[in-house]
Amino acid sequence: MRALQHPAVEDVELSTVLTALADPVRLRIVAELARSGGIVCGQFDVPVSMSTLSHHLKVLREAGVLRVTPQGSYRTHELRWEEMERRFPGVLDSITRAVTHTAV
Amino acid sequence: MRALQHPAVEDVELSTVLTALADPVRLRIVAELARSGGIVCGQFDVPVSMSTLSHHLKVLREAGVLRVTPQGSYRTHELRWEEMERRFPGVLDSITRAVTHTAV
Repeated sequence: MRALQHPAVEDVELSTVLTALADPVRLRIVAELARSGGIVCGQFDVPVSMSTLSHHLKVLREAGVLRVTPQGSYRTHELRWEEMERRFPGVLDSITRAVTHTAV
Repeated sequence: MRALQHPAVEDVELSTVLTALADPVRLRIVAELARSGGIVCGQFDVPVSMSTLSHHLKVLREAGVLRVTPQGSYRTHELRWEEMERRFPGVLDSITRAVTHTAV
């Protein structure tokens, strides 16, 4: 499996992170990841096809929001929580809480 | 001057707010408003033309992020801080703090 690119957190810009999060499906993905440890691609509870899901996961990965780790023939996805909190304190935390409490 | 539309805060969706904020110029506008009370349109310190600034302010107003109040021949702009904090606690606060501390 080809190695996946992840931006260094210090190169990530706030507008890029917000662009990645500004989508109802991606907000649901991020909220699910915030509740869980790591999730394998096929286990997300979102009403989209696998190819659309893959696109959304790519957008979030390229924005520095999540890390993808190949494990055999699967990929595990997890939020880069500590790195994001260090660079943009409270942003990911408040947004994932807001997803849980409101319609997105 | 024509009355300006402002959405009810309970109708505002998180993805709409994040879409409005996911732009470097609009992040600067919001950070300036967070530091000040209300700002008249021509006083924003952003490197764009007045017509582009007006567009950005309209996007933020329609997303429920700011309130525009006509005052004579001017318009005063202020964040809808309390309403946004009530609906999405910590989101606007953490984002405006992050703008101040990082490149956007």
